[in-house]
Amino acid sequence: MRGKRVRIRAKGRIFEGIALPSEDGKIVLKLDNGYNVGFYDYEIIEEEEFEVPEVKLPAVKEREGLKNVKVISTGGTIASKVDYKTGAVTSQFTAEEIVSDIPELAEICNISAELLYNILSENMRPEYWITLARRVYEAIKEGYEGVVVTHGTDTMHYSASALAFMLRTPVPVVFVGAQRSSDRPSSDAAINMICSAHTALSDLGEVAVVMHATTSDDYCHIHRGVKVRKNHTSRRDAFESVNYPPLGRVWSDGRIEWIAERFRRGERELQLFDSLEEKVALIKYFPGLTPEILEFFHDRGYRGFVIEGTGLGHVSTDWVDTVKRVAEDSLIVMTSQCLWGRVCDRVYDTGRYLLKAGVIEGEDMLPETALIKVMWLLGNFELEEARELVKKNLVGEINYRSGYEEEFE
Amino acid sequence: MRGKRVRIRAKGRIFEGIALPSEDGKIVLKLDNGYNVGFYDYEIIEEEEFEVPEVKLPAVKEREGLKNVKVISTGGTIASKVDYKTGAVTSQFTAEEIVSDIPELAEICNISAELLYNILSENMRPEYWITLARRVYEAIKEGYEGVVVTHGTDTMHYSASALAFMLRTPVPVVFVGAQRSSDRPSSDAAINMICSAHTALSDLGEVAVVMHATTSDDYCHIHRGVKVRKNHTSRRDAFESVNYPPLGRVWSDGRIEWIAERFRRGERELQLFDSLEEKVALIKYFPGLTPEILEFFHDRGYRGFVIEGTGLGHVSTDWVDTVKRVAEDSLIVMTSQCLWGRVCDRVYDTGRYLLKAGVIEGEDMLPETALIKVMWLLGNFELEEARELVKKNLVGEINYRSGYEEEFE
Repeated sequence: MRGKRVRIRAKGRIFEGIALPSEDGKIVLKLDNGYNVGFYDYEIIEEEEFEVPEVKLPAVKEREGLKNVKVISTGGTIASKVDYKTGAVTSQFTAEEIVSDIPELAEICNISAELLYNILSENMRPEYWITLARRVYEAIKEGYEGVVVTHGTDTMHYSASALAFMLRTPVPVVFVGAQRSSDRPSSDAAINMICSAHTALSDLGEVAVVMHATTSDDYCHIHRGVKVRKNHTSRRDAFESVNYPPLGRVWSDGRIEWIAERFRRGERELQLFDSLEEKVALIKYFPGLTPEILEFFHDRGYRGFVIEGTGLGHVSTDWVDTVKRVAEDSLIVMTSQCLWGRVCDRVYDTGRYLLKAGVIEGEDMLPETALIKVMWLLGNFELEEARELVKKNLVGEINYRSGYEEEFE
Repeated sequence: MRGKRVRIRAKGRIFEGIALPSEDGKIVLKLDNGYNVGFYDYEIIEEEEFEVPEVKLPAVKEREGLKNVKVISTGGTIASKVDYKTGAVTSQFTAEEIVSDIPELAEICNISAELLYNILSENMRPEYWITLARRVYEAIKEGYEGVVVTHGTDTMHYSASALAFMLRTPVPVVFVGAQRSSDRPSSDAAINMICSAHTALSDLGEVAVVMHATTSDDYCHIHRGVKVRKNHTSRRDAFESVNYPPLGRVWSDGRIEWIAERFRRGERELQLFDSLEEKVALIKYFPGLTPEILEFFHDRGYRGFVIEGTGLGHVSTDWVDTVKRVAEDSLIVMTSQCLWGRVCDRVYDTGRYLLKAGVIEGEDMLPETALIKVMWLLGNFELEEARELVKKNLVGEINYRSGYEEEFE
């Protein structure tokens, strides 16, 4: 393999480093300090090709006394690796590669790695969730102590929700990603990966997301898969639990502090419901949006709808008639674009007209979680049953309010 | 006027209070302690009608030395009032009524009140923003020291954005609402209103939202209108500044602590741009959403689109062709459903294909703000100019990153 080292002038300064793959006439350099810089306007002063010696990674040996963890890769920043020496983007995602990158992992568990997909997280689709759920199900049946799924961060919370509904798991199923790739000094890949391995061995029996809890390298949060959301485009602590506390904190030395009620290891029997209805729409309401949008989807065969209404769960009053018509053969769930808080009926407003028209309130579910829940319900149950089940807390996605006392607030 | 006092049995307990208006067979009682309770299942034990003496509110006198503030009501919880004695929902929204409710206001400024609309906030529409902007413009021309707009909280941040773009104001234009109506002991109406009056008199020259800053009755935040969002369905501190600090804190005694850079009183000349293009769509992307949604709107004459992409601003790669076709005669802005953080192009992903296809990055703009900005741009400028202006910071809606150094993070 050959690499290329270049010296350029850009923005009035000199930069020198390994040229990384790029496009559109942009040049991207990996500087010697590990940082990347990119420029459209630049002048090459000097360049030199060099031969990169092939590195043979040592085989990973199983260590006695360590438990087995399955690591399944679906792609994303955490799995992508730009070779520091060649500039090539490579990833075979073998156990050898992972352990060579993060040697601490070999002390924690015996890793069996598998590259299931290598897709950009924004290209995730319901059909991929089905394959992933089946693969995780098999791994659990094979007896792994826990499963780690590496995933791009963009849609990781959608995927975690999907697996939480499709799979009742007696062991930890841990989604993990990285906001900064492992070739950057500020990368969160290693600590996230180490913390997810510890979580995979823990007394957890549900689908979780493990990611940086703070902007420093302190510890990670273990988030409930159906209660987590990416709330920042770039920060390492972008993932936050919404309307439920993180399940716990996990440090890279293996210490875990549980915070909230969780499903425990072995609490639920392994079950797979590997069907999803893809034709479900999430619609965010805004002032001026007309209800034709419902008909657009309905005409195309959609029978599941999640509305992201305003405030406590509203849309314009002129939606009521259309909602009523569409709800006749569909499941319509109301959530809130506030994201935090609960959708609920109130005493003096149009909310009650929507309920009469057939809208079901999503309680404190995130819109993204409600979307996946409806996909899953319509994929596995008849409409009437789905309408009943959507109101019920199935895997921790709903926390009910305490009852009528709430009106005293 | 007649009221009705009832005693009921519900949930195995006895409740007594004034019956409030309700529907669907539900009974709602205002208890003597001021709280409301509602029940579907109840039994009336006793009821008694009574005559409510008419209350004549004292006229509000202008006080010398106090400055004049215009208060314009558009409806919402803060303007609605359930009469404690009769149970009737009433609001004339006169200065007398406001000052009788919140006597502190008479010490702060001379209020001139006007009921412009009385609509539910979820029924807010672009055409109402135009009327509101014109009315506020006139009030500023009439010489008021500041303008307070009372508004339902559901869509208050959309409306504040709309006025921020439509109106370059040399004085404070303060949106204020309440999460709990003034007939409830936990109401935030009074302190929000008092703090908004102080803000209307302050050294501010832009459109702001003033709401509870904490869950206690401490102080309010002054949020920049284009940088604020309702982030909780019911909490009193539901409004949060996103990607910019609150402009300041304001206490009910009139103390103001400025936090962030702001437009100052008199800094900008009064200008009105009272045109909006209503046909602009905000589309939240989710795994599985097909690009036909763009064509649906485009076929109906929409030429403005704001996409709420995932992460740094993504949609599935199979959107690129449709995006390119639609972008030919449209303005498409990419924002992020993360809400916090910045949309930006990156080195190794499909983001660059979207840019090539004609998508313009919304930087750190909120999706809701970007929607309004596009409505305003297409209402007032030709497409080419709108495409240039959407990237520019016009009223504080964009904070640019520092430049190429950012890639060093």
